[in-house]
Amino acid sequence: MPKLWNDTISEHRRGVREAILDTTWELVNELGPTGVKMSEIAERTGIGRATLYKYFPDIEAILAAWHFRQVTRQVVYIAEIRDSTTDPMGRLSAVLGAYGHHQRHRAQHHRHQPHGSELAILLHRSDGQVEAAQRQLHALFTDLVADAAREGGIRTDVSVGELATYCLHALTAADAMADDQALDRLVAVILRGLRLAV
Amino acid sequence: MPKLWNDTISEHRRGVREAILDTTWELVNELGPTGVKMSEIAERTGIGRATLYKYFPDIEAILAAWHFRQVTRQVVYIAEIRDSTTDPMGRLSAVLGAYGHHQRHRAQHHRHQPHGSELAILLHRSDGQVEAAQRQLHALFTDLVADAAREGGIRTDVSVGELATYCLHALTAADAMADDQALDRLVAVILRGLRLAV
Repeated sequence: MPKLWNDTISEHRRGVREAILDTTWELVNELGPTGVKMSEIAERTGIGRATLYKYFPDIEAILAAWHFRQVTRQVVYIAEIRDSTTDPMGRLSAVLGAYGHHQRHRAQHHRHQPHGSELAILLHRSDGQVEAAQRQLHALFTDLVADAAREGGIRTDVSVGELATYCLHALTAADAMADDQALDRLVAVILRGLRLAV
Repeated sequence: MPKLWNDTISEHRRGVREAILDTTWELVNELGPTGVKMSEIAERTGIGRATLYKYFPDIEAILAAWHFRQVTRQVVYIAEIRDSTTDPMGRLSAVLGAYGHHQRHRAQHHRHQPHGSELAILLHRSDGQVEAAQRQLHALFTDLVADAAREGGIRTDVSVGELATYCLHALTAADAMADDQALDRLVAVILRGLRLAV
């Protein structure tokens, strides 16, 4: 088989997979995670039921794949922010801000969906894939803190890994911030926690 | 009816209620939250099934009451720590440490239980009562930060309410700390975030 044909197939499969994830997310938001049937997902995606089962065994597997895609996109987005600034301290600050805004908008989205909290619980049953992506996020933050530390100005009495853990947890407060200004203040508070005492 | 009799009754009822909560918690930890029947709870508590239903309609209600009791105990414990120190900054630091240790031990407990993560998800479906207790916890932290702020040394560019939110979220990192020393370092980092720049 020529390579081109293989590429076309895998591109097609990827497209179908993405469409299944998007459709399922739409449906569970409309009807709640327990109110959706595989046949409805197949119908709205525009594929046969048998085809759908070739991709995913059940709705839980689709939601897990959707969650993994979300976390992966977040890692890619964070890496882009990181690569758009060269000064290590400014980079750390930019990433903290971007990640916080991301968190806040996601939380608001969940809050405005009728089945948001139900879905949030379901997605928290994170599987191994999602945990791997979260470890990646932690590694990314650890590198950022380490780079800033090399320039000085970051406390040295706590390991960069622990400081990254602190950042990621403190940033969950973004959900509770009233507006973007409050979020900027949160980022400033978190950053000061990382600083050397002067 | 004499007052004494009423007191005895309400004390008895409280005792039964506590026993139901303890027994249910034991059982769900042994068998998982979906593996326990109301009849088993009644049997192990040593009461009749009909009596059990006078206290709680279902297992979800018992677990919600158990969770509420946990959060309430936590608020009481934190208030005790608060009242055992008079210096405002020392008090804030002591409470952050105590709350962090509490969080870490609870997380470790969940991790070592075969049904820990399942239970943690279930308990996160917090009802109005638990939310009220969490607001109480936030109010308590807000007061602590406000007291420390009056002594100076706390940043003034962020409201004490937002600083309390930051503390509570950053303290969830306690779960990920390897040991008590790491937790102490976390508390030091969080505290520095609250500080005035000098």
